[in-house]
Amino acid sequence: MSHRGKFITVEGSEGVGKSTNLDFVARQLQAAGIDFVVTREPGGTPLAEDIRQLLLTPRDEAMSELTELLLVFAARAQHLSEKIEPALAAGNWVLCDRFTDATFAYQGGGRQMSDVVIGQLQSLVQGDLRPDLTLLLDAPVEVGMQRASRRGDLDRFEREELDFFERVRQAYLSQVEREPGRFAVIDASQSLTSVQGQIVDALTPYLSANRTPTGES
Amino acid sequence: MSHRGKFITVEGSEGVGKSTNLDFVARQLQAAGIDFVVTREPGGTPLAEDIRQLLLTPRDEAMSELTELLLVFAARAQHLSEKIEPALAAGNWVLCDRFTDATFAYQGGGRQMSDVVIGQLQSLVQGDLRPDLTLLLDAPVEVGMQRASRRGDLDRFEREELDFFERVRQAYLSQVEREPGRFAVIDASQSLTSVQGQIVDALTPYLSANRTPTGES
Repeated sequence: MSHRGKFITVEGSEGVGKSTNLDFVARQLQAAGIDFVVTREPGGTPLAEDIRQLLLTPRDEAMSELTELLLVFAARAQHLSEKIEPALAAGNWVLCDRFTDATFAYQGGGRQMSDVVIGQLQSLVQGDLRPDLTLLLDAPVEVGMQRASRRGDLDRFEREELDFFERVRQAYLSQVEREPGRFAVIDASQSLTSVQGQIVDALTPYLSANRTPTGES
Repeated sequence: MSHRGKFITVEGSEGVGKSTNLDFVARQLQAAGIDFVVTREPGGTPLAEDIRQLLLTPRDEAMSELTELLLVFAARAQHLSEKIEPALAAGNWVLCDRFTDATFAYQGGGRQMSDVVIGQLQSLVQGDLRPDLTLLLDAPVEVGMQRASRRGDLDRFEREELDFFERVRQAYLSQVEREPGRFAVIDASQSLTSVQGQIVDALTPYLSANRTPTGES
């Protein structure tokens, strides 16, 4: 009989080093001998990735904010039902690049949509499911934007203004105040070595708890 | 200054003659000199039509019921904000092939999802907006299915079983009981001439009310 896996999410605004550090987390899990799947939002299944394309691709038609929010949760419902829930139930850990904290940050903070509405959709789609641990890569907006702008072509979200990303950052930090036990806030303005040291510190209690007694047959 | 236009929807299960009779309604509006747009759900804008494709195209990955419901309302939010609301506000009438009654019928009745949840999403996306008149083309399920099966390739919904469509029909009829003033139930098992006579009877009060006094400069 397998225990339910842990659900770890990595969050942060543009240019905070999310991809690099997600890879680093994956290597830590691997080194600890944990079975896990890496996935991302919006997306994670073929259908949810098609929804992601609708969300990210700029087009002439303006997307209403409510359309955007409902597409985000449609993709999430699919991702949960077809990938995250089955993996956790089978005892695998799930490492996910962004989850519902990003919705509170981007649609709530950035677009200033109602947290109450987002919370209702969260309950509808997730019930009580929340990540076990969320690594929030936090840095001043100017730092992140400089790094992101070096990447070239910008998607619908990367085209937003500085004010938007300041609201995104503050909304992430508000989430931390609401659920401090779930978050590890990583100072992403530090050197990569320091950032990864902070990540190891945050992961250690989870990895230790997972360690099974050895030396017994 | 223009008056707000009327919002007319045409509903019904597979094979009840929705397309033919929608065209007939359009000709009636045209003959009455009304400015109107014809549109459909899910869809009605390029983005909402892309969502429609996700909803209708069969694929290997099973679509969760909640994903389907949220995609339906995402398309609707876009359709309302970019097409229906602007048209009504400009004084045009909107003639729409299916709307939220279809969600209560297909996702509520057919898939047996919660009417309470559907009602919450309806409030979120539409506020108080409801059609002024809904023509429900009603026929015994066997009649509709026979006609629909002659059309060849079936989409995700048309592939459902007879029981599913019986629940769809009953859910439509329950909607009529809840809001009798908004519906005209058309007996679609009758001859085309009879069906169109019933449609004219249902439309007449709306067309008469729209008639402006003539003979004055």
